[in-house]
Amino acid sequence: MIPTPYLLFLGDAPDQLAAKVAQGIKDWRPENAVGQFRLPGCGADVGLDDLTLDEAKAAGAQTLVIGVANRGGVISQAWKEVLIEALKMGFDIASGLHNLLRDEDDLVAAAKVNGRSLHDVRIPSTAYPIANGVKRSGKRCLAVGTDCSVGKMYTGLAMDAEMRKRGMKSTFRPTGQTGILITGGGVPLDAVVADFMAGAVEYLTPDNDDDHWDHIEGQGSLYHVSYSGVTMALVHGGQPDALVLSHEPTRKHMRGLPDYQQPSLEDLRDTALAMARVANPACQVIGVSVNTQHLSEDEANAYLQEVEDRMGLPAVDPFRHGAGRLVDALAAL
Amino acid sequence: MIPTPYLLFLGDAPDQLAAKVAQGIKDWRPENAVGQFRLPGCGADVGLDDLTLDEAKAAGAQTLVIGVANRGGVISQAWKEVLIEALKMGFDIASGLHNLLRDEDDLVAAAKVNGRSLHDVRIPSTAYPIANGVKRSGKRCLAVGTDCSVGKMYTGLAMDAEMRKRGMKSTFRPTGQTGILITGGGVPLDAVVADFMAGAVEYLTPDNDDDHWDHIEGQGSLYHVSYSGVTMALVHGGQPDALVLSHEPTRKHMRGLPDYQQPSLEDLRDTALAMARVANPACQVIGVSVNTQHLSEDEANAYLQEVEDRMGLPAVDPFRHGAGRLVDALAAL
Repeated sequence: MIPTPYLLFLGDAPDQLAAKVAQGIKDWRPENAVGQFRLPGCGADVGLDDLTLDEAKAAGAQTLVIGVANRGGVISQAWKEVLIEALKMGFDIASGLHNLLRDEDDLVAAAKVNGRSLHDVRIPSTAYPIANGVKRSGKRCLAVGTDCSVGKMYTGLAMDAEMRKRGMKSTFRPTGQTGILITGGGVPLDAVVADFMAGAVEYLTPDNDDDHWDHIEGQGSLYHVSYSGVTMALVHGGQPDALVLSHEPTRKHMRGLPDYQQPSLEDLRDTALAMARVANPACQVIGVSVNTQHLSEDEANAYLQEVEDRMGLPAVDPFRHGAGRLVDALAAL
Repeated sequence: MIPTPYLLFLGDAPDQLAAKVAQGIKDWRPENAVGQFRLPGCGADVGLDDLTLDEAKAAGAQTLVIGVANRGGVISQAWKEVLIEALKMGFDIASGLHNLLRDEDDLVAAAKVNGRSLHDVRIPSTAYPIANGVKRSGKRCLAVGTDCSVGKMYTGLAMDAEMRKRGMKSTFRPTGQTGILITGGGVPLDAVVADFMAGAVEYLTPDNDDDHWDHIEGQGSLYHVSYSGVTMALVHGGQPDALVLSHEPTRKHMRGLPDYQQPSLEDLRDTALAMARVANPACQVIGVSVNTQHLSEDEANAYLQEVEDRMGLPAVDPFRHGAGRLVDALAAL
């Protein structure tokens, strides 16, 4: 686990989109962030107080989190000065960048001298077991998508937030870099060695109270040929009791694969449910989560109604309408 | 690629089963092996001449292949003396052991001094790409199993051998340690990082002549919750034109998973074919390969006939009856 709370480092982010990790932390775990740190020329603002390292330290921050993508895949000298100063002041540093902190000699040296840790969440820090398939107590929900990047993480975070708001027992279980930085822990599943993928998901979602729900962050798609193996490991390692189908209705083709079309929601339902029932025969599809960001309000409502009529399942965009109806469906299981 | 031909090191194998890697090389690529090397007390014999290192060198051997499992997971001192002597004499060493040659300081030093290579086929030596899903020329056949260890490698090797005997264009494409040592190259898929699994399979089975068949070694099972993600990467990265269903009819439960039953051949057919058609809409299931080693000849024949009638597909045990009818079915596509 990464020590919280954080100071969110936005660096010289060219625009708001580049700071989406920081924005995710602020949106979903505001209690994890005491403020933001921006360099001159920063084009992003996640709406937190701009703090110096001293001020952040005084406010209790334990870790400086790199909440921004780096330009050109290089950790620049301008960043380095801040990061090394932060290590000297007793901050850990956490990053989901492709370039690892541990590959930067000056950061490694400064961390060592000051007794601090560098958290590269892009790669595993645990030796995961091979999955044993043993039934675990507690409940698990997994979002499976018609494609990659259709809103599976958002769906899981929104359902988790709604359940906790209602006083239900719920934990979001991250399987990707952004989710891990948001919550402070998880499994970077796409970086796990093949033999241990399903075991890593079992490790992430252990036995729990009978009325506790894990919301497992989905990855990839059973229909995305580049990443379907990762999705399969989630479906089998996660032993989900409930599946949510996630979809983005305006895609012209599968993400990054111009020759591949998205499956229908019916095909996704049938395939994912059959595979999930191998590990958990009681698994049910409980709803559809649609990312309607490219539709108008009227178009979105019409589309959701059409899906709901067709599939006989609640169909919502949790960003527009909240995850309440999906949680209702879970609670009714 | 590992330089061939090999000297097969059987060490102090307690019994024949411990030398199954060496036996596989001798059975499937006898031209790759000039002889065997046994230590005192060796209980295995793959039926090749016992050669000294000098004799093997004179016979042209390039690589000493560790064709035996080590006891207790330790590379013993008795082995070391032979291995270091082999490096001094100009052999490379290849191994599929869990303990890596590269983690043994004395072997690393001896290899370096003598300018030889240590080939640990258990782990990847290539930075594989992320799969792009682009349609490749040539044909590909993949065996998919109701369970792990039901004869998928054997099926692929037997079909490849039969096709080459008929003068057809065919290549066996290994995805596991034994297969890699048999042929001298391949992808150790279970050790590839999740994001690159399907890309590794694409890399392994590149564009080829329109009438060339790759026989891709299967791994795991879509129904084995520990390894299904690896299987899925084969189904999507391999873009198979043909699937062979592999089955062992006497299993009481899925291998290593006492609470899991094998799927029916019909379920496997429907699931695997639907998934394969995502990557290759022309894919067909062409036959069933049954491992009947635990059945009598009469039982085996009755079982195969029953499967054949039920599935409407040729059903054979390639070990008992050869792979001819499976190749006939491929050729008829």
